[in-house]
Amino acid sequence: MTGQKIRVGVLGASGYTGADLLRLLLRHPNAEIRVLTAERSAGRPIDAVFPHLGGFGLPDLVKVEDADWSETDIVFCGLPHGTTQEIIAGLPRNVKVVDLSADFRLADTRTYAEWYGHEHKAPDLQKEAIYGLTEWAREEVRNARLVANPGCYPTATLLPLLPLVSDRLVELENIIVDAKSGVSGAGRSPKEANLFTEVSEAMHAYGVGSHRHMPEMEQELARRAGRPVQISFTPHLIPMNRGELITIYVKLAEGVGVGDLREGLRRRYEGEPFVRVLPEGGSPATRHVRGSNLCIMGVFPDRRPGHAIVISVLDNLVKGASGQAVQNMNVMFGLPETAGLEQVALFP
Amino acid sequence: MTGQKIRVGVLGASGYTGADLLRLLLRHPNAEIRVLTAERSAGRPIDAVFPHLGGFGLPDLVKVEDADWSETDIVFCGLPHGTTQEIIAGLPRNVKVVDLSADFRLADTRTYAEWYGHEHKAPDLQKEAIYGLTEWAREEVRNARLVANPGCYPTATLLPLLPLVSDRLVELENIIVDAKSGVSGAGRSPKEANLFTEVSEAMHAYGVGSHRHMPEMEQELARRAGRPVQISFTPHLIPMNRGELITIYVKLAEGVGVGDLREGLRRRYEGEPFVRVLPEGGSPATRHVRGSNLCIMGVFPDRRPGHAIVISVLDNLVKGASGQAVQNMNVMFGLPETAGLEQVALFP
Amino acid sequence: MTGQKIRVGVLGASGYTGADLLRLLLRHPNAEIRVLTAERSAGRPIDAVFPHLGGFGLPDLVKVEDADWSETDIVFCGLPHGTTQEIIAGLPRNVKVVDLSADFRLADTRTYAEWYGHEHKAPDLQKEAIYGLTEWAREEVRNARLVANPGCYPTATLLPLLPLVSDRLVELENIIVDAKSGVSGAGRSPKEANLFTEVSEAMHAYGVGSHRHMPEMEQELARRAGRPVQISFTPHLIPMNRGELITIYVKLAEGVGVGDLREGLRRRYEGEPFVRVLPEGGSPATRHVRGSNLCIMGVFPDRRPGHAIVISVLDNLVKGASGQAVQNMNVMFGLPETAGLEQVALFP
Amino acid sequence: MTGQKIRVGVLGASGYTGADLLRLLLRHPNAEIRVLTAERSAGRPIDAVFPHLGGFGLPDLVKVEDADWSETDIVFCGLPHGTTQEIIAGLPRNVKVVDLSADFRLADTRTYAEWYGHEHKAPDLQKEAIYGLTEWAREEVRNARLVANPGCYPTATLLPLLPLVSDRLVELENIIVDAKSGVSGAGRSPKEANLFTEVSEAMHAYGVGSHRHMPEMEQELARRAGRPVQISFTPHLIPMNRGELITIYVKLAEGVGVGDLREGLRRRYEGEPFVRVLPEGGSPATRHVRGSNLCIMGVFPDRRPGHAIVISVLDNLVKGASGQAVQNMNVMFGLPETAGLEQVALFP
Repeated sequence: MTGQKIRVGVLGASGYTGADLLRLLLRHPNAEIRVLTAERSAGRPIDAVFPHLGGFGLPDLVKVEDADWSETDIVFCGLPHGTTQEIIAGLPRNVKVVDLSADFRLADTRTYAEWYGHEHKAPDLQKEAIYGLTEWAREEVRNARLVANPGCYPTATLLPLLPLVSDRLVELENIIVDAKSGVSGAGRSPKEANLFTEVSEAMHAYGVGSHRHMPEMEQELARRAGRPVQISFTPHLIPMNRGELITIYVKLAEGVGVGDLREGLRRRYEGEPFVRVLPEGGSPATRHVRGSNLCIMGVFPDRRPGHAIVISVLDNLVKGASGQAVQNMNVMFGLPETAGLEQVALFP
Repeated sequence: MTGQKIRVGVLGASGYTGADLLRLLLRHPNAEIRVLTAERSAGRPIDAVFPHLGGFGLPDLVKVEDADWSETDIVFCGLPHGTTQEIIAGLPRNVKVVDLSADFRLADTRTYAEWYGHEHKAPDLQKEAIYGLTEWAREEVRNARLVANPGCYPTATLLPLLPLVSDRLVELENIIVDAKSGVSGAGRSPKEANLFTEVSEAMHAYGVGSHRHMPEMEQELARRAGRPVQISFTPHLIPMNRGELITIYVKLAEGVGVGDLREGLRRRYEGEPFVRVLPEGGSPATRHVRGSNLCIMGVFPDRRPGHAIVISVLDNLVKGASGQAVQNMNVMFGLPETAGLEQVALFP
Repeated sequence: MTGQKIRVGVLGASGYTGADLLRLLLRHPNAEIRVLTAERSAGRPIDAVFPHLGGFGLPDLVKVEDADWSETDIVFCGLPHGTTQEIIAGLPRNVKVVDLSADFRLADTRTYAEWYGHEHKAPDLQKEAIYGLTEWAREEVRNARLVANPGCYPTATLLPLLPLVSDRLVELENIIVDAKSGVSGAGRSPKEANLFTEVSEAMHAYGVGSHRHMPEMEQELARRAGRPVQISFTPHLIPMNRGELITIYVKLAEGVGVGDLREGLRRRYEGEPFVRVLPEGGSPATRHVRGSNLCIMGVFPDRRPGHAIVISVLDNLVKGASGQAVQNMNVMFGLPETAGLEQVALFP
Repeated sequence: MTGQKIRVGVLGASGYTGADLLRLLLRHPNAEIRVLTAERSAGRPIDAVFPHLGGFGLPDLVKVEDADWSETDIVFCGLPHGTTQEIIAGLPRNVKVVDLSADFRLADTRTYAEWYGHEHKAPDLQKEAIYGLTEWAREEVRNARLVANPGCYPTATLLPLLPLVSDRLVELENIIVDAKSGVSGAGRSPKEANLFTEVSEAMHAYGVGSHRHMPEMEQELARRAGRPVQISFTPHLIPMNRGELITIYVKLAEGVGVGDLREGLRRRYEGEPFVRVLPEGGSPATRHVRGSNLCIMGVFPDRRPGHAIVISVLDNLVKGASGQAVQNMNVMFGLPETAGLEQVALFP
């Protein structure tokens, strides 16, 4: 019954992350969308911004300050980095929050200030924020009020890497993460660099050595390793809408074989609905996760003895953003974790 | 005058490499195309296979055994790997050859047999073959009768890596080559894996740890380093027609800085018409080399102290195949090296 | 409960249409997949053919002759044109059938023979076949044993055109249908013409004046118009996976305005869950129907007085094939027509 | 010798049309680029805007008012529509001009005002402007000071249509032009609608019944037909960078057959270097003109008796813009018309 559904608000509903959240929530058996905000488009219906979301009876877009939070049990926040801390701090305490920006992902506010160029505006709130990589934080998420939803690159990197690091199957030095992503991660703001004509039939690296997802990855790796870990991370822009592929180069720990890595991952993720470890020889492909909440990973021997290559793929808008956010909501409200997330990948 | 032009034959003119050779040779001021072979399409005009090559007065396609070699000064061989050795062995000695297959790239015929699964069929001819990475073999190419044109991945990898290895600016261990390529490198044979519907909006790694371009790279690296070098090489298939981007992870030699790498490359390639080293901060993009014979490279600091990232791009069908083949022809016949190769990149 | 679910078989499960059927049926609340056939891949698990369909507990692929039909209530048939008539004729009478091939779409077996180049092999069965354009054949589909699922082009063309023709809002002469389709409609067989390198960054018309979807459209138009209708139909291949856009040029009937067309469509499809008629000025876009069962249409004034332009879009694999097939199944079994078909479009 | 080369200026060098002009002019044997303007990027080198144009010794970008026109024999003007009239009016009279905007294409300044929403700002200059569809205006272009370079859609439409209309092979009523174009025609300004994520895997019609290329087409059709002609024109946006395909639906004149149309086109364009008429059955494809100055056309019977379908393709940035502009320059300066325009299409 309607009255028993979780009442949901989406802050920043006019971006791609917002759109994908709505795609999932509209078909979630236990969710009801009550509030949608967007600054420039406030006052307009959602289908003025996203025609494919018309016809579902969604509420019109309003400004953040005009939203009625008493209507909501949980708010997903898809606002740009840097704008979110104050807004979330202003929400009623009884509203739960899953924040998809980077604003609450770094536990150390000094690290935040260093990478984002300004002081953290809600340091107290930061203390209660849970880094919501669901498969690794389920218990904390269950009781959290504020979940910082991981970035797409960190999700795709940490899921395969955390078991290897925490079980010390690989050495902590010289972990190299070569990442490739589709364009939707760059958002919907009009920028020359993201025009079709610039991206199509083209490829380049960006943010080499300086991408803001790095501290987030190192924070979680360090937490599981019990000591600081510094990785090399280079993202590349690929001419496709959705999809992310991460190629990780690691050195095996003493006495560990490539099969041990695969087996370690397999054991760690056995029973997980959204993580699949391929058998020997299987090569993860983004076309197999398009539109779904899956992360698929595979392990390969490197030609250099004592080294291995781990590859993972996910849909950056789903498991890398909105899907994981819904997964966290499910955990926070005691629902089956797969509720609303059972879409089969759209291929071709 | 026509009589003084270089008379050219193209073996295997019905593939993409053949098509791109013809695109270049048709506009080469000193070349005249006299013979085109294709097995299945023999007897047909070239525009039955490639409509965009109609209207230029090209000869019809013939079978290899029907070609009149007395008509040619040089033959480009774009046949599949494994079929080329015997055919080239049967050509008259006064015809020069640039072979675009892998059949003559490996000096050690045992290595060839190991990677290609059958004995080398022209081991004597192998002895005189020159590995034609033009910028590194100009003098030998000048006097060669048979040039083995490098593969696309080796070209894009060796151009940035050879100066670093030969000058020992980087350590020889743990060189990691993460490669991304457009689809045209896979050729024109109909295969499910290369259908639009499989490739578009998708990405995956292939031949992990086993790609046949590896021994070729290691051979050349070893030659310049003076001792064996083993690299890690992982190629990925990217949804675009042309273009290759190579991300190389290296450890700096003792006392060497990132700027030294960039400066070393800059000095090495100063005056080279087809190699550009970007200034600090510049990120090579495949859209800037589409259809051109350029290789562009850039050097970046790695977050890991003492490491660097080197990125290079080229068009796999041009500098990675047909363009370099024409460049080698120019050297073999004493022409200006840029003859026929001055196309500006096609962007967008 | 499982026992009460509709037991489904899919003939020809290794093609794209089969894959999209499975995507939908796997999440259908009332369906259970019991039999999957594929000739060449018989004996293998479905994820050997479509890795993204692994992990759902689907049955292995078998040959048609090895399938146990007593296990099924309905069979979807996604076999190539021309092979289906005999196979369906061999199925037990108590199994319902939705055929996605063209084999039962033409009521007149002479027309079939003329367009398909061979005699119809099950003329008796043809007599009971219902042309399953759901919105126009609901009552007949409800009681049908054999439904011929319309082609993608006919669906996208007939949905906007039938109301205009049956209500004589447009003249029956000089109806021009300019169609544009993504590549997935061409299937998964490896053909040079469908390679990424041939299709990407490219566009051309095909089957001009001779496409086999024409008789099917004219049959249905004639049925609703009450007299023969001959249309002009030209399809174009567009570099995208999914999506079809139809631009129809019509002459208005005496005294009819452009607004009357829009209003006529609106009234005809009011309450239809899968058809949307855009208000004035709205331009249908394929990105708004990707992966969904929607058909969206819009009406525009032509610059030529007394003429109009009608545009419709759909996803060729969903409303143009598998989605409509499931919709027909829902009708045949008295289920809510939207069951299993409520996916929101995947954008971007 | 350099001193004898044509000295060229490019106004608005930072757009895609400007870039493609430079690509062609850099390899033109008789041109020398002396002045490049760009408003926002003035003071910067061209490779700050287009890295692929670096390394050729091009002059830095300057503001229009800072350009030294005494340095130039001809100016190509690639400024946005509406800004060009006054600037061109301010150029010295001895500088020839090829304007690629729409500002001088409409001979009737009232028609201009009607379609562009403001008065023509240089009506006197308009009187001497020649509509430079080269194959139809060669003599006038030869002596022109100011050439209005046709739009991409008009070029692709008029080349096949003018011979049919001027020889009355088709009726003048009910000419329907269904156009499909790649994205580069939309320019380089950042707009949401042209983001990769909006355009890729998607398709829609735009400017239905209101596109500004219409009056330009009707003007030229009327001129050749000797009386007003009103056409239906609907453009569609296709997910590709370059390429335009026009499908034209015509009614044959009394006693005229489809073969007569083909033959009429063949005869009209015999000997033309940049127009090809395909033999019966040939279907023009954009991949065969990518990067080249060609327009390819084919004629097909319509299923409706007495009707025909004419299809043409070109690269919107080349024959549809910069290539035709260079072609016009060649005519204006008495050079071979193919100078600098002999690129073979880039396929794949």
